[in-house]
Amino acid sequence: MHYELYYWTGIQGRGEFVRLALEDAGADYTDMARVHGDAIMTPLLAGKTDGHRPFAPPVLKAGRQLVAQVAAILDFLGPTLDLVPHAASRRVQALQLQLTIADLVAEVHDTHHPIAASKYYDEQKTEARARAEAMRGERLPKFLGYFEEVLRANGGRHPLREHSYVDLSLFQLLSGLDYMFPRRMQALWPSLPLLQALKDRVEKRPGIAAYLASGRRLAFNTNGIFRHYPELDGDR
Amino acid sequence: MHYELYYWTGIQGRGEFVRLALEDAGADYTDMARVHGDAIMTPLLAGKTDGHRPFAPPVLKAGRQLVAQVAAILDFLGPTLDLVPHAASRRVQALQLQLTIADLVAEVHDTHHPIAASKYYDEQKTEARARAEAMRGERLPKFLGYFEEVLRANGGRHPLREHSYVDLSLFQLLSGLDYMFPRRMQALWPSLPLLQALKDRVEKRPGIAAYLASGRRLAFNTNGIFRHYPELDGDR
Repeated sequence: MHYELYYWTGIQGRGEFVRLALEDAGADYTDMARVHGDAIMTPLLAGKTDGHRPFAPPVLKAGRQLVAQVAAILDFLGPTLDLVPHAASRRVQALQLQLTIADLVAEVHDTHHPIAASKYYDEQKTEARARAEAMRGERLPKFLGYFEEVLRANGGRHPLREHSYVDLSLFQLLSGLDYMFPRRMQALWPSLPLLQALKDRVEKRPGIAAYLASGRRLAFNTNGIFRHYPELDGDR
Repeated sequence: MHYELYYWTGIQGRGEFVRLALEDAGADYTDMARVHGDAIMTPLLAGKTDGHRPFAPPVLKAGRQLVAQVAAILDFLGPTLDLVPHAASRRVQALQLQLTIADLVAEVHDTHHPIAASKYYDEQKTEARARAEAMRGERLPKFLGYFEEVLRANGGRHPLREHSYVDLSLFQLLSGLDYMFPRRMQALWPSLPLLQALKDRVEKRPGIAAYLASGRRLAFNTNGIFRHYPELDGDR
């Protein structure tokens, strides 16, 4: 199967969670907007393509099937790419974990855009500082502590006791947080040894290592979801 | 199958999306915290129950299976309760739509809590006013216009061309928005005739009508996700 991935150029963004799955599995795919430009997504988002209209990228096209929403795409790809346990009872647990990652990712975005996604960061900088304080002090320890506990309860290596797309998404989440909140993460890492080891292991997987070394992996930047603004970071 | 639903007492909250599915299907379930008190959830959230530890309620227990996250619970229940199309290609579309509903629900929460979930509304009232303006002016028309278009593209009655949990979740979303933003919704409704008709139809379904008339349906209130604060509402 040849896949088409539709996502904005210039940032990793939410598309990166899908890219990591495709790259880890060595799937055959075209990153459509990087080849054809962002305009390739216009008819898709206007509902002019066969299949269910997406609200926003990323969108995956697999033959005639269109799927949007990161967690739905990963749930869809998981069985085919062998990135999720086969039993239905375990597959729904992967989805549950992915949705909790998605919740944190949405909160990360709103940390630098607490008032309106349509306004510039500079227009909501004061509010962003206040929200970042709550993110660093309350939300990060709560979410990351949860994922650490899930790892501990499941043998320490994989949240689902075997490699899955959830491992890849945790890697992406942790990499993004390291970029966005270097000081805060330096303080948190000692309490997250299993997540640290998982991140290191994922980074060394053949497909992921090759991808990270390639030009396809864009650097984090202040247009994406994870944005490093020093004034939003802190030891606590 | 007897289900156990775990969710906070006193509010509809995110649990209501699961309740509506169970009630519509006439499923046999116990609303555990309403029977035993909120403390029944403590061991569950501490990971002391068999099954995958949840990050937060709602949690559904079905035999030995625990599932958390609304969209994962509905994806899990859908086939058994006959609330989702059977084909895998359609089931993932239901998930995609549900996740877009979930995105809007998260934004609705952050409208009255733009800085920190842990702080009172009164402590972030000024920021909430600014965020509510963006919600009313940009986000509501964008999301609701999207769902209206999905209905139009699929025959007008059901987003998936047949009754599904997505219809029920849209009903809940629209009911919550009517409560939270009565003035804004009054202005938007004329542009959303298909959503209006869907909402009216869902309300009259036997299981839903019986549930809404029962004491089990709590009223919306200012402790839940959808909160009516007149100062956050407006015609535009």
